Amino acid sequence: MNAATDLATAELAVASLNEAALAARVATVALAAAPRAQKDAALLAAAAAIRVRALPILAANAEDLAEADGLTQAFHDRLALTPARVEAMARGLEEIAALEDPAGRVIAEWTRPNGLVIRRVAQPIGVIGMVFESRPNVLADAGALCLKSGNAVILRGGRESLRSVGAIHAALLDGLAAAGLPAAAIQVAPNADRSFVAAMLKAAGLIDLIIPRGGRSLVERVQQDSRVPVLAHAEGLCHTYIHEAADPAMARCVLSDAKLRRTGVCGSTETLLIDAAVAPSLLPVLVADLAVRGCRFHADARSRAICPELPPATDEHFHTEWLDAVLNIAVVDGVEGAIAHIRRYGTEHTEAIITEDAAAAARFLGGIASAVGMWNASTQFCDGGEFGFGAEIGIATGRLHARGPVGLEQLCTYRYQVIGSGQVRG
Amino acid sequence: MNAATDLATAELAVASLNEAALAARVATVALAAAPRAQKDAALLAAAAAIRVRALPILAANAEDLAEADGLTQAFHDRLALTPARVEAMARGLEEIAALEDPAGRVIAEWTRPNGLVIRRVAQPIGVIGMVFESRPNVLADAGALCLKSGNAVILRGGRESLRSVGAIHAALLDGLAAAGLPAAAIQVAPNADRSFVAAMLKAAGLIDLIIPRGGRSLVERVQQDSRVPVLAHAEGLCHTYIHEAADPAMARCVLSDAKLRRTGVCGSTETLLIDAAVAPSLLPVLVADLAVRGCRFHADARSRAICPELPPATDEHFHTEWLDAVLNIAVVDGVEGAIAHIRRYGTEHTEAIITEDAAAAARFLGGIASAVGMWNASTQFCDGGEFGFGAEIGIATGRLHARGPVGLEQLCTYRYQVIGSGQVRG
Repeated sequence: MNAATDLATAELAVASLNEAALAARVATVALAAAPRAQKDAALLAAAAAIRVRALPILAANAEDLAEADGLTQAFHDRLALTPARVEAMARGLEEIAALEDPAGRVIAEWTRPNGLVIRRVAQPIGVIGMVFESRPNVLADAGALCLKSGNAVILRGGRESLRSVGAIHAALLDGLAAAGLPAAAIQVAPNADRSFVAAMLKAAGLIDLIIPRGGRSLVERVQQDSRVPVLAHAEGLCHTYIHEAADPAMARCVLSDAKLRRTGVCGSTETLLIDAAVAPSLLPVLVADLAVRGCRFHADARSRAICPELPPATDEHFHTEWLDAVLNIAVVDGVEGAIAHIRRYGTEHTEAIITEDAAAAARFLGGIASAVGMWNASTQFCDGGEFGFGAEIGIATGRLHARGPVGLEQLCTYRYQVIGSGQVRG
Repeated sequence: MNAATDLATAELAVASLNEAALAARVATVALAAAPRAQKDAALLAAAAAIRVRALPILAANAEDLAEADGLTQAFHDRLALTPARVEAMARGLEEIAALEDPAGRVIAEWTRPNGLVIRRVAQPIGVIGMVFESRPNVLADAGALCLKSGNAVILRGGRESLRSVGAIHAALLDGLAAAGLPAAAIQVAPNADRSFVAAMLKAAGLIDLIIPRGGRSLVERVQQDSRVPVLAHAEGLCHTYIHEAADPAMARCVLSDAKLRRTGVCGSTETLLIDAAVAPSLLPVLVADLAVRGCRFHADARSRAICPELPPATDEHFHTEWLDAVLNIAVVDGVEGAIAHIRRYGTEHTEAIITEDAAAAARFLGGIASAVGMWNASTQFCDGGEFGFGAEIGIATGRLHARGPVGLEQLCTYRYQVIGSGQVRG
């Protein structure tokens, strides 16, 4: 494309995004006014439509896959839909329908000395823009979570999943229509031009929140370029610290789960911090447990003094989110040593301490700044479902608005209702 | 300055800001660990130091004022300190010391079926960057609120208040030193170069939140340029809607307060929406009440059909935050008409309905998207003190993190503490 064509494409994208965002804003009025039953009816009808449309959805996905031929196996796995995955999407919608309505909830209420009653009430955020990569089923999850929380959403998937996304979107539109809710409540980008994303990121005032969901480069690009507030799901470089007062059996069991249950999730442990007091006895056992299951290691000098067969770790290794069966290991001195390591290398996602010593646990949980601190539990519990949120749109790694799993409640903001009887400030 | 000098200044500003932000980050560890008593001791010692240093503070302010000679009266009023204002700063610090510590509070706690106990705990946000304009006393308020909430803060005031800010800062540093807290907890920019602000706005990862406080152009510039999340205090174009079931005496009393108690505050009413059903009888009385007190008007055609002496309003008038004794007037049809007007012209700050009809009030409060909805009370109650927050750092006009008055609680974020007994996801 030449520069003039680029510019024309960008202008069309802005016009198209602005139109979509204005329609979404209008839809938020209907969504805010919709009773829970109406939103749930839309979700249940959409679930039924996904089952009815299973064959066209799979056919569209097959076309996407054919075109994506030559991409990596991991990429293929993320893009591919199966009958089981389609059924899981439908069930996901039904599960979200079964959750409480987060909007309208009175979060707090108090009365002032002058008689004013002040209520803080949850309300939808408004118009959400979501940029996601290859998994087409993100559309169903995210669309349903936004709808249930009363937000309108504009989703832009990857170029490679355009047909799959279109087919799933048709089912969601069936659901909205069946419940009498506006189609503009869940919109997808008309094409996969990058200029549409660029227009989304510039749409401050039209879009209230951008949620990027995908690999690190996507998230960083969105954070860098967005003029709209971003709720980012960035890196999860999680640590498990085994304190000197750990129950050794629990430590073995929890560490194995934290590292190896699923290695590709953001809550998986990337670094083991082991207390110098127990490292000589416990580290060889922990390493053996994991090695048997195919785990590889990068160990600091103090760990290698105990287990000389471990390969050495560099500073870079301790900064790396492996998302694989790879574990960094460092020996640390007490809770303060563990906290210092985490402050230096961590990403404020999730950290765990394994100990029978409550005071040590309290020091650890109070000393880290991470979104989630676990005591005697696997870091892999950092998950909306496990937290009882029913479903999540991601794990927030920033410090504002929401941290950790982002479920329906976190997709809301609040407003105040102040009830008086003619009070003036005078 | 030539381009090379500009560049050198910008580089120095970035180096200086980065150093300040790293020192602030280190200070957050001490602040997070500080018990309430230590933070309060710092605030009380700072209050005492402000009283002890009253003369040098006033002398520094006199120098600033001498240099600012020739500026407007309003500007002069904002910049000027008096013995009473200095005493008010000291008392403000004492009042913040008396407030509850917002950090560490358990916001929510629940137990999962697998026995995991999940606690959501309030914690400081981290490092806050504040950009403010001419009022030097903002430093004392904002510094104290950040300290009490456990945040480190870097403040950059206006060029015109540099000496006043330095003198007040010295008192705050006395307080920190007296309580054994790090000086880096409250820092001020070393100079008033714009390049320091530019460096602050680029410092994503070093600064966690930017709070601009000042005029519209400052806030818009910060929102436009910042790579760091911004909690903005933007426009307050507030409406008071007088419903057909309003008590006329209450309507007169509340409207006068909402418009004229203080016209320069963001919670003052800028537009009166009066229901067509009561406008013929009530509008002339309301206009007379306000006119007697010096208010001027811009009225739509339907209002002028009732009160022909009123000057006509343009569309632009309804978009204008006057911050003065000026009122826009429009006649509307019922609650839906009022909501439609507010959706079109409002800034989602504060709106009030005056009515004896609870159903109408509920429709109004549910139908507006504004941060604060008032029923039978003056819009001027939108204020941290009036909400019971003790003090506020501003009124948030965005939709994320916090809305309305921003007090100690809103200067916190949260994290989760998850307490297990060896649970694994398996």
